[in-house]
Amino acid sequence: MPRRRTSRAPAGAPPGIPVVAPESLPPRIHAIRYSQHSIEEMDLLTVDECRALVTPSHVTWIDVQGLGNVELLKAFGERFGLHPLAVEDIATSTQRPKMDDYDTHLYVITRMPEPGEMVGTDQTSIFIGPNFVITFQEHYGDCLGPVRERLRKGKGLMRRSGSDYLAYTIIDAIVDGYFPILETHGERLEALEDDVIENPTRNCLAKIYEAKRNLLTLRRAMWPLRDAVNSMIREESDLVTPQTRTYLRDCYDHAVQILDMVETYRELAAGLTEIYVSSLSQKLNEVMKVLTIISTIFIPLTFIAGVYGMNFDLWPPGSWSGSFTTVMIGMTILAILMIFYFVRKGWIELAEFPVIGSIVKRIRAQEK
Amino acid sequence: MPRRRTSRAPAGAPPGIPVVAPESLPPRIHAIRYSQHSIEEMDLLTVDECRALVTPSHVTWIDVQGLGNVELLKAFGERFGLHPLAVEDIATSTQRPKMDDYDTHLYVITRMPEPGEMVGTDQTSIFIGPNFVITFQEHYGDCLGPVRERLRKGKGLMRRSGSDYLAYTIIDAIVDGYFPILETHGERLEALEDDVIENPTRNCLAKIYEAKRNLLTLRRAMWPLRDAVNSMIREESDLVTPQTRTYLRDCYDHAVQILDMVETYRELAAGLTEIYVSSLSQKLNEVMKVLTIISTIFIPLTFIAGVYGMNFDLWPPGSWSGSFTTVMIGMTILAILMIFYFVRKGWIELAEFPVIGSIVKRIRAQEK
Amino acid sequence: MPRRRTSRAPAGAPPGIPVVAPESLPPRIHAIRYSQHSIEEMDLLTVDECRALVTPSHVTWIDVQGLGNVELLKAFGERFGLHPLAVEDIATSTQRPKMDDYDTHLYVITRMPEPGEMVGTDQTSIFIGPNFVITFQEHYGDCLGPVRERLRKGKGLMRRSGSDYLAYTIIDAIVDGYFPILETHGERLEALEDDVIENPTRNCLAKIYEAKRNLLTLRRAMWPLRDAVNSMIREESDLVTPQTRTYLRDCYDHAVQILDMVETYRELAAGLTEIYVSSLSQKLNEVMKVLTIISTIFIPLTFIAGVYGMNFDLWPPGSWSGSFTTVMIGMTILAILMIFYFVRKGWIELAEFPVIGSIVKRIRAQEK
Amino acid sequence: MPRRRTSRAPAGAPPGIPVVAPESLPPRIHAIRYSQHSIEEMDLLTVDECRALVTPSHVTWIDVQGLGNVELLKAFGERFGLHPLAVEDIATSTQRPKMDDYDTHLYVITRMPEPGEMVGTDQTSIFIGPNFVITFQEHYGDCLGPVRERLRKGKGLMRRSGSDYLAYTIIDAIVDGYFPILETHGERLEALEDDVIENPTRNCLAKIYEAKRNLLTLRRAMWPLRDAVNSMIREESDLVTPQTRTYLRDCYDHAVQILDMVETYRELAAGLTEIYVSSLSQKLNEVMKVLTIISTIFIPLTFIAGVYGMNFDLWPPGSWSGSFTTVMIGMTILAILMIFYFVRKGWIELAEFPVIGSIVKRIRAQEK
Amino acid sequence: MPRRRTSRAPAGAPPGIPVVAPESLPPRIHAIRYSQHSIEEMDLLTVDECRALVTPSHVTWIDVQGLGNVELLKAFGERFGLHPLAVEDIATSTQRPKMDDYDTHLYVITRMPEPGEMVGTDQTSIFIGPNFVITFQEHYGDCLGPVRERLRKGKGLMRRSGSDYLAYTIIDAIVDGYFPILETHGERLEALEDDVIENPTRNCLAKIYEAKRNLLTLRRAMWPLRDAVNSMIREESDLVTPQTRTYLRDCYDHAVQILDMVETYRELAAGLTEIYVSSLSQKLNEVMKVLTIISTIFIPLTFIAGVYGMNFDLWPPGSWSGSFTTVMIGMTILAILMIFYFVRKGWIELAEFPVIGSIVKRIRAQEK
Repeated sequence: MPRRRTSRAPAGAPPGIPVVAPESLPPRIHAIRYSQHSIEEMDLLTVDECRALVTPSHVTWIDVQGLGNVELLKAFGERFGLHPLAVEDIATSTQRPKMDDYDTHLYVITRMPEPGEMVGTDQTSIFIGPNFVITFQEHYGDCLGPVRERLRKGKGLMRRSGSDYLAYTIIDAIVDGYFPILETHGERLEALEDDVIENPTRNCLAKIYEAKRNLLTLRRAMWPLRDAVNSMIREESDLVTPQTRTYLRDCYDHAVQILDMVETYRELAAGLTEIYVSSLSQKLNEVMKVLTIISTIFIPLTFIAGVYGMNFDLWPPGSWSGSFTTVMIGMTILAILMIFYFVRKGWIELAEFPVIGSIVKRIRAQEK
Repeated sequence: MPRRRTSRAPAGAPPGIPVVAPESLPPRIHAIRYSQHSIEEMDLLTVDECRALVTPSHVTWIDVQGLGNVELLKAFGERFGLHPLAVEDIATSTQRPKMDDYDTHLYVITRMPEPGEMVGTDQTSIFIGPNFVITFQEHYGDCLGPVRERLRKGKGLMRRSGSDYLAYTIIDAIVDGYFPILETHGERLEALEDDVIENPTRNCLAKIYEAKRNLLTLRRAMWPLRDAVNSMIREESDLVTPQTRTYLRDCYDHAVQILDMVETYRELAAGLTEIYVSSLSQKLNEVMKVLTIISTIFIPLTFIAGVYGMNFDLWPPGSWSGSFTTVMIGMTILAILMIFYFVRKGWIELAEFPVIGSIVKRIRAQEK
Repeated sequence: MPRRRTSRAPAGAPPGIPVVAPESLPPRIHAIRYSQHSIEEMDLLTVDECRALVTPSHVTWIDVQGLGNVELLKAFGERFGLHPLAVEDIATSTQRPKMDDYDTHLYVITRMPEPGEMVGTDQTSIFIGPNFVITFQEHYGDCLGPVRERLRKGKGLMRRSGSDYLAYTIIDAIVDGYFPILETHGERLEALEDDVIENPTRNCLAKIYEAKRNLLTLRRAMWPLRDAVNSMIREESDLVTPQTRTYLRDCYDHAVQILDMVETYRELAAGLTEIYVSSLSQKLNEVMKVLTIISTIFIPLTFIAGVYGMNFDLWPPGSWSGSFTTVMIGMTILAILMIFYFVRKGWIELAEFPVIGSIVKRIRAQEK
Repeated sequence: MPRRRTSRAPAGAPPGIPVVAPESLPPRIHAIRYSQHSIEEMDLLTVDECRALVTPSHVTWIDVQGLGNVELLKAFGERFGLHPLAVEDIATSTQRPKMDDYDTHLYVITRMPEPGEMVGTDQTSIFIGPNFVITFQEHYGDCLGPVRERLRKGKGLMRRSGSDYLAYTIIDAIVDGYFPILETHGERLEALEDDVIENPTRNCLAKIYEAKRNLLTLRRAMWPLRDAVNSMIREESDLVTPQTRTYLRDCYDHAVQILDMVETYRELAAGLTEIYVSSLSQKLNEVMKVLTIISTIFIPLTFIAGVYGMNFDLWPPGSWSGSFTTVMIGMTILAILMIFYFVRKGWIELAEFPVIGSIVKRIRAQEK
Repeated sequence: MPRRRTSRAPAGAPPGIPVVAPESLPPRIHAIRYSQHSIEEMDLLTVDECRALVTPSHVTWIDVQGLGNVELLKAFGERFGLHPLAVEDIATSTQRPKMDDYDTHLYVITRMPEPGEMVGTDQTSIFIGPNFVITFQEHYGDCLGPVRERLRKGKGLMRRSGSDYLAYTIIDAIVDGYFPILETHGERLEALEDDVIENPTRNCLAKIYEAKRNLLTLRRAMWPLRDAVNSMIREESDLVTPQTRTYLRDCYDHAVQILDMVETYRELAAGLTEIYVSSLSQKLNEVMKVLTIISTIFIPLTFIAGVYGMNFDLWPPGSWSGSFTTVMIGMTILAILMIFYFVRKGWIELAEFPVIGSIVKRIRAQEK
């Protein structure tokens, strides 16, 4: 269980005061300010500079990557009028996705899949104001590159729509970011399936358990994310236009589809455990059959040999040398009878010994 | 897991722009235009021609098979005023069934069972306008032949009703198309059941797992399809008349019945896994009984033979030859006692050795 | 899975047209017409005669057994104004129980337990009009004899109440018909339980699986039947009087109780599977203990005998005959030590060998 | 499954007519009539005497124990205006707990735990009228002694409140009567837990199964009882005062708590089955290890002894007597090597053989 | 199952009268009285003194630790107008968390995690009046130290807000107190996971079972606690201000997150059981393979040796000494063939015997 060190405030601490994990990265701020006809991008601003960018004529997207500066978070909270509880949640990196409506702004927590990882998710906080969107990410780098590209190109609805549509685009990109991860999961399960049926090693067991745990983690991230998107659709906030709600409904459908896939993979993984145990039983049966066949054939023969090795006078009195051949023939017949018994019981696969197999088949055919 | 290559737009891409999978088939357009008294059929039209066909006096069904032309899809969207999100969904071939009400038209995604396949489903998108129905199918060929035949014959309500009734007929045909598939599943499970109890091979395990996976896929297709039909019944859209709602309710009942069967088969398949494991255990027990019986009888006998094979002077001093007979008789008695012990324990089935069996039965009868 | 041949219309067929299975029985019509003071019974009528019987002053119960005449069904539909979809459902013998309100009449599908069968259910369709009840049954013979008897005797509320009360009486008789079947199931599970713990044969496995399947079938019949009764209670139809609703609530309670029993039996059956597997493991353990005890005692002894059977000169040089006794005593001591070891491990049950057992007990007692 | 003989009316019988099981006890009637200042108790009354006791100035509690008199039940129904369906339910001893509001009176069915039993529950029917409470119990003796005592002492709210508070007190006593039973269940499960881990005998299996079945029965009794209490709280009947509703809410909390415990115990019992199976596997592993160790050590040695027992001329030619010692030393070394192999594999527990163990530990320590 | 001795009133006892467990600690009373500008703390007061402290100008928090004085509890009930049922609940130490609205005061039962314990929870009752909060705890010592500290420091909203905010702070501290416990659970499960895969001992089984039971207990405490917090948010009581409701929503989110973690750990623990059983099977397979390999190699060889040990005349007549070498070579070849057979079957791991392994690999490579 590769767990994150959490940066939760200790129990009993006052609410609304963010606590930052020691290993947090120093924040980098990037802002995009656009209207239908213009777009400008800026790096490395102070909070005051950020505030100044926000004007009714433009939509401003302020993206903060790295949370290692408590004062900065507090400053954002104060200058943009963000609710203290929301500011605290930014820094607590184990939040469940949710949507809170603080009248003047909406606060959406999402979990963005980390590039190149199977489970890890970065907490991404999104504040949606009347003409600004502020996003806070734990790490540098994200999956929002295509969103920025679309803003720069200025095609489609983005540049013509408000901050709510920008927020939708960001959330949609995050949700869609789960599809490739799930496809990788699907491929791994397929590969595991063959392994488990063919050759159930201890390694398979660990892999199945890992797959289950990863899918559980994905489910924990997606389930509340779906609910958060649904809240945005249903909440009666003026910040979300009806048009954006229609698009959010599409995003909601994607979230439902992802959950659907996660549940399906979880059921398949559960089925794999059953197959693993069954395969082990099957293998044990095979091992025991070999042992039983060998023992059942040779233990009685060894006994017979033992009888003739007893230190008695010759019995029946007379020449033993002829009798030796008789005994050997008797033993051979006994062995053949037993082999036939096992073939009939199906313990010896005919396919492996084609000569005997074909004889037995002929006999069976005659019987019927 | 025989998965489809998906044609989903990459994460962060703009919404409403269809992305077509490279292997998509070139579209073929077929139109049927009918009123109560007339019917005409046309092939290979352009989108403009299609648009021209739609008049208030007739109901027009435009059926597009093959989605390999993005421009065509966009043209349909523009000429018929279809919502961009819906147009995007046409091309994304892994959509869950759903019903969206876009005021001027309804958009229903269904999954049509592929003829001759156990699981595969073709995504079929249905747009319902005031006097037209447009259907988009991934592949050539479908299960709507009887619907077209009924239109041509002009019997029943079809020709007298509007586009909503046509849509109902199409959806009903799709839903009913699952019944034969489920019956095949039922028959296969029955056949598997006998196999699993009689002869639990590794092959069975793979078959059970496959059956479970197929049923899971069917469930994923049917569950949202049922909800989509229910939405059509409940949605307050003028496009669906009360009469058609009554018929949709019947269609809904069928969907519920199919889900009911899927769930039942899933429970039966789950039961089969249990039986498989139990059968394996039973087989292992049988194998071990044989080994134990043979070992328990012959190992002590071999030991006795070994004792008499030790290189000591004769003991008790005197003639061994008589004593040999004594030893052999002793061994025989020991063997018979052990066999009786196993018969009493129930490890040796009396039915297989009728002579001994009848003796033991008589003894048991006397004891009672 | 003993499945019925279904008489479903093929996918894409027009709705509202009944399709009758080829093996359907020819219909027999029986009518009872009663008021508070009079009652008359008639056999073998045509549909027109049936229609003529229905007058506001009396309640008429028309009972059709056998569905092998499509024209008759259609005629009933036309003469009594029954909805075409309902008429189609009469003939489709795999319907789930449901209640449909068609304004002028209610349509209730129930599944009547077949006399003397554990699972099989006959579809019984009930149409409730203002002063008539029409029932359609698949087979001849039913469990409604007591209902007819009560009508004839004229006691209680029946003759004084309307068609809705008659329908209630019929549904109640059908629901109560499941109680004896469930009691038989309960008794069988009890009997199975002893078998499974005492002697887990392959036969048990098949019986448990069968029990599960039967209970699943019963559940599938009862669950929607309960909902249908509930719909009759809640539906705002003038055809059901408040008084009858009170009685239907009682009937609903019975349906709930039956479902409760089914669920309980299902859980017990699931528990039996667990016991079966555990019992098998227990048996395997016992078998393996016997093998291990015998092997562990005699294999080392055989080895010792083998050592003395080696073709070396006498060792230690001197008289072997005395030494033979020593070896035999040594072997006996070794065997006894091993037996003690197994008794201490609990592998040899003291109860089976009371003499040794009592000795060991005494030793144990002294140790403590 | 110790089942009760039921006294259900046969299917199709008229509703509202009680059917009494043949073994029912003859009824004993006990009445308590009290107001705030007075209390009187009477035994052995007729129904008419009972009716006469009920006056608006007092609260009368009529307690009927034993249901073996149909006429008496009918008489109660007629004299007190009880609904026929309720009267029928009194005698049907397998009712699920429920609450029915018949306007003039409430009818509550509860199941009272039988004193000294783990599962058995007596059906107790409670009728609540404006100034009377009538209770019907199957058997003599109940857990309502403390309630009567409190009435006699006249302390608390009881004597000052109406019939609804008396009914609450009775129901509360019944609900609380489940607590000691559940505690006994808890203790038994604790005891079972140790048994199952230490010594998984077949007996454990039967006990776990019994515990599961008992808890299932308790759950079946408590779940609807909780709902019945909830109905009393929510139902808009004038017969229950707001004050009593507050107290019933407390009773509801207790019922929820009992269900919570039942569910917890059910999960623990389910866990015990898993442990049982795991323990069996563990035991089997241990048995097989002993067999394997003994076989693996002695079978090769026996083979070597067998080789030297072959009837060949001496080989290598020369003195065998010296060579015998060599062979024995070789065998000893082989045996020790194998024991070391098993110790390293962890099959021989070091703790059991402290001398060897300490040596091996030292060797391991040096290796690291 | 380390159970608590409960102090529940016996069944049938009058409600509203607290019953105190004999081992209860004598109560210690601590009061904090504060307004925005002042704060005072007091110890060891009587109930009357407590009552006198409560004035509209200040918020008073009375904290009672130890419940071993029935009279004190009753006195609190009377002087503060607490509902008798609530007072009874204080002393019943097995209550489920809940929220009751008694108009003049709210009553919240919570379960506080005991410091240093994994499961044990102290029942903490919280009464919220217009300007007072009374808390009752079972034991001395709690996790509310930081809350008191924040009151003393006077920072943040606490001193400026009313009793409802104080209650929120207390509940929030209790909820957050579960996080470290859950993290410890998570770490233990991680450690167990490695153990179970590597070395599945009986000890693991007990630990998994304990983990499951503990998580079950936590779930039982958290689930109703979450509901209680939710009730406080939704209940239309004037005692909770809208501002505090916002903060309670944050507290609710934490409770949901804890439940989410508990469920995840429960699923992981369930997965561990599966792994344990699978690991045991895997181990058994390994043990059986060793037995089978040794037996299969040496039993036939021993038989051959036994044949040559039979007391026959020399056969074929002539020199045996040369023939002895032939026999030994034959046996060696037979043994090598069998070893190859097992290597091909995958029963002998090549990695363990690198010399043979490399040879076999080369052969396999040539075959392909």
